[in-house]
Amino acid sequence: MNRWKLRIPEGVQDYLPEECFNKRDIEESIRNIFFLSGYEEIETPSFEYFDVFNGSSINIEQEKMFKIVEAGSRILVMRPDLTMPIARITATKLNESLLPLRLSYISNVYRYEELQIDKQREIAQAGVELLGVAQPEADAEVISMAIQIFIKLGLSDFQIDIGQVEFFKGLIEESKIEPEISEELRILIDQKNLLALRAFLENVNIPDRLKHIFLGLPQLYGGVEILEEAMKLTQNPRCIKAVENINQVYNILKAYGLEKYISFDLGMVQSLNYYTGIIFRGITSNIGFPLCGGGRYDSLLSEFGYDIPATGFAIGIKRLLISLEKQKKLKKIPPIDILVI
Amino acid sequence: MNRWKLRIPEGVQDYLPEECFNKRDIEESIRNIFFLSGYEEIETPSFEYFDVFNGSSINIEQEKMFKIVEAGSRILVMRPDLTMPIARITATKLNESLLPLRLSYISNVYRYEELQIDKQREIAQAGVELLGVAQPEADAEVISMAIQIFIKLGLSDFQIDIGQVEFFKGLIEESKIEPEISEELRILIDQKNLLALRAFLENVNIPDRLKHIFLGLPQLYGGVEILEEAMKLTQNPRCIKAVENINQVYNILKAYGLEKYISFDLGMVQSLNYYTGIIFRGITSNIGFPLCGGGRYDSLLSEFGYDIPATGFAIGIKRLLISLEKQKKLKKIPPIDILVI
Repeated sequence: MNRWKLRIPEGVQDYLPEECFNKRDIEESIRNIFFLSGYEEIETPSFEYFDVFNGSSINIEQEKMFKIVEAGSRILVMRPDLTMPIARITATKLNESLLPLRLSYISNVYRYEELQIDKQREIAQAGVELLGVAQPEADAEVISMAIQIFIKLGLSDFQIDIGQVEFFKGLIEESKIEPEISEELRILIDQKNLLALRAFLENVNIPDRLKHIFLGLPQLYGGVEILEEAMKLTQNPRCIKAVENINQVYNILKAYGLEKYISFDLGMVQSLNYYTGIIFRGITSNIGFPLCGGGRYDSLLSEFGYDIPATGFAIGIKRLLISLEKQKKLKKIPPIDILVI
Repeated sequence: MNRWKLRIPEGVQDYLPEECFNKRDIEESIRNIFFLSGYEEIETPSFEYFDVFNGSSINIEQEKMFKIVEAGSRILVMRPDLTMPIARITATKLNESLLPLRLSYISNVYRYEELQIDKQREIAQAGVELLGVAQPEADAEVISMAIQIFIKLGLSDFQIDIGQVEFFKGLIEESKIEPEISEELRILIDQKNLLALRAFLENVNIPDRLKHIFLGLPQLYGGVEILEEAMKLTQNPRCIKAVENINQVYNILKAYGLEKYISFDLGMVQSLNYYTGIIFRGITSNIGFPLCGGGRYDSLLSEFGYDIPATGFAIGIKRLLISLEKQKKLKKIPPIDILVI
């Protein structure tokens, strides 16, 4: 027999009954929260034109997309993301709807990633997009939904780190450095690689005051006190506005009684072409990858011809399964006869 | 702007909130019946090695598969079917489990079909496989589940046509005709193309008695009386066994009180390499395609190195949505405040 008949490719998996039951259970809990929060679910095609995902602010390289290439057809890709299809739908089919629009999805995305622990190439996600609101209330709303989901699933140990990409972008603008240098800086800060960051900054021609701030960015991480610390570091109006924006979002979350789940991280600087304001991720101690990620992306919709602000997030369902399993919170499939009674 | 950014490929669709709500509602109803019937849900990867789907009894041509081809990798395809992945899983990961195995799925399959009305290339399916039982009880069980689903969804007008591929295969064996001729015969009978069938049979060198039976096959369609009719037509033991087998399945369904949903069709002769016994489909008057299809496939599992009998079916969820819409049975999204109360 052809031995490949019995194998599956790297980066994908079979969900056998026990795990599939828990996956469905998690999805149903999340779907319920989305619904009760007023987020209408949509479903987009598993494959679309490459054009949809190929744009100036997109943060997924074409090397990472699964491509379906046939003579006589435009290039198709398995969707690497759901925000872009939702932007497409919003711009074409929902552009007469009253704003704000609240949309949700529970679907797979496909990315050719290097295979580390849990790096899946077929990634089950649940997420929301809140379209048409620029105010901090919108960011607070989606962050509070992520928290609600983790609470409802019984995850005992999680926190949401909040950053704001304008803080870093303001410093870069002030530094007047070349894009390649700022990109190198961004990567070192994102990796919290202090030694390499210090060495790199020695050869960058900017005032010591700015070097000091960049070097401190990876440590601008912690409770609400780091927002005050950040304010003391700079008079840059773009940076100050960024910290004020975080404060506004934080105060709303505090009013919801959710402050204990919140931390801040001004060194969160990934996907800067894509994100335009608040950025956040959910982490837990027993898994080395974020459980969810999201933020504000006010320039994406205009690439689809409909210029409205937007914010949202996506949760990784497999990562939730791993975390809940480590916390011994997964369920057994109940016996049917009990359910029938 | 690149106009392709706003379009989707042919054969796929966006499910906007209203339709997505009904799709989830249908899926949840079906999932519930699967669960209460003891069918454990599994989920398989969206893409797999081409090898899994490339075998002697498989009825999907490689031309119809969406292929992901990269240098350095075996050919991958988006799954064109779920029975094959379930056979793979059963043979590799569940082959120590007690038989029978009852498995279910609610997932998409992908086939490059000519685009007729509703011919989708991303096809949402719900289905079951009952593995390890050769007896007619198993066929009756899966057929009764299809009926239960249609009843639960409130479909007012449907029936299940039951056939048995051994009736046709017995006649072909008796005719001792070449495979190309039997394949041509099969196609004409499957299309119920009586004129072309009559013309074709005139040039086939078989006894008139057999010609008469082949010519009558497309009309061996209707209530339980056609089983008696079929018995009168032939003494071929393989054909007689086939009709007896249908009768056994029918008697079990009658004992369940489901006989009013059942018709018979001995001219149902599709996918003969794949099916080995009972074959059935669910139809309704307001849509020109079957809502579901299934049957017994006792030789497939051995291609994966685990020789056990099996039967199952798959329902097309989009076709259900179309039928229920035509019957004005789709739901409105309920207002949230009512649900919260």
